Amino acid sequence: MAPSDTHEPLDTIFDELVQMTRLVGSAMNRATQALLDADLALAESVIDADAQIDTLTSDIEERCFDVISFQQPQAADLRVVIGALRIAASLERMGDLAEHVAKQARLRYPRSSIPQELRGTFAEMGGLAEAIVSKTGAVIATRDVSLVADIARHDQAVDRHHRELFTIVLSPSWAHGVEAAIDVTLLSRYYERYADHAVSVTRRVVTVVTGEPYVGVSLT
Amino acid sequence: MAPSDTHEPLDTIFDELVQMTRLVGSAMNRATQALLDADLALAESVIDADAQIDTLTSDIEERCFDVISFQQPQAADLRVVIGALRIAASLERMGDLAEHVAKQARLRYPRSSIPQELRGTFAEMGGLAEAIVSKTGAVIATRDVSLVADIARHDQAVDRHHRELFTIVLSPSWAHGVEAAIDVTLLSRYYERYADHAVSVTRRVVTVVTGEPYVGVSLT
Repeated sequence: MAPSDTHEPLDTIFDELVQMTRLVGSAMNRATQALLDADLALAESVIDADAQIDTLTSDIEERCFDVISFQQPQAADLRVVIGALRIAASLERMGDLAEHVAKQARLRYPRSSIPQELRGTFAEMGGLAEAIVSKTGAVIATRDVSLVADIARHDQAVDRHHRELFTIVLSPSWAHGVEAAIDVTLLSRYYERYADHAVSVTRRVVTVVTGEPYVGVSLT
Repeated sequence: MAPSDTHEPLDTIFDELVQMTRLVGSAMNRATQALLDADLALAESVIDADAQIDTLTSDIEERCFDVISFQQPQAADLRVVIGALRIAASLERMGDLAEHVAKQARLRYPRSSIPQELRGTFAEMGGLAEAIVSKTGAVIATRDVSLVADIARHDQAVDRHHRELFTIVLSPSWAHGVEAAIDVTLLSRYYERYADHAVSVTRRVVTVVTGEPYVGVSLT
């Protein structure tokens, strides 16, 4: 079988994965905005849109199944298809995490889930999530792995915010009570997990591109 | 190609998945015990053993890759192999969640992460996790989907405990402060996610066995 037989469907799979990064990026962006502004309609729109991400995941799985069935890709091409299945699963999970943020915003509406003085931190985590997912999309689209170091650096910044938030809610000066502390902790964890999944996606892409496990990014 | 060519490696993949359910079941069991007894050595042993689960996941992925490459399974058999990849990923994540429980036990050592009066609830969640993963192993081993309803019922019981724990830590009578409230919330979430992943594994098995998406279990 000539390689060209496989490359066109593989390109379609990559296009769909890039489209998924846009959807889960937009979902997290809008969820962050809904959280910061206590915007119920925006939160609802994120929650409703998650079904579209789930459908796209199923479409990608079916396409991978068809490619394996009908094209019988070998070696590197088969690794790409199998890698795409794992990447789609991670991106689906990132969509779920954006939905969790939106549900948290909805739960406390018309109040905000986060105290005024932490708005800046969550806005930054949202901005980092946006940068991470947009670069993840670029890595998938171009297979240019030079962005991976940027993504790892953004992920470390998210982790730092996550640890800082723990320190803040546990400090004696925390004046917002148990509920707000739990809200902040869970929300912070959703961003941290979202970033981790993006890192695992880029690790998969690197593995597929280089044929070697990527050891430069440590996931815990 | 005769079906028998594919069935032997498929059986090996299923055996390895069953072995993974035993490992992640044992991990969560021991993590629960470490949590209840503030047992540092036991917590460390769970954390150390997670690498074995990760290795087994990679082994299963490689075996699936080889089966697709060399046996070129079609239709239902190919769906089994692709399903096995997703199942291995979910089981790996269940191992991570057991490790999170163990890390939480280690973090607060020599204290316990959970107040005395919640020990019973966490012991029950641990027992439910054990029942769920052991039945998940049986579903994979036998492809007998009659256990799926049991698993869904156990999962609902875990969800009830998870909601109850929220109510308890947010009640005005909560006397253990913010840190314990956050510990309880995160721990409870680990058990809830663990059970959810087990349900998603059984859904995959049902899909593979029946060729139809299983709609009897709703995951949110």
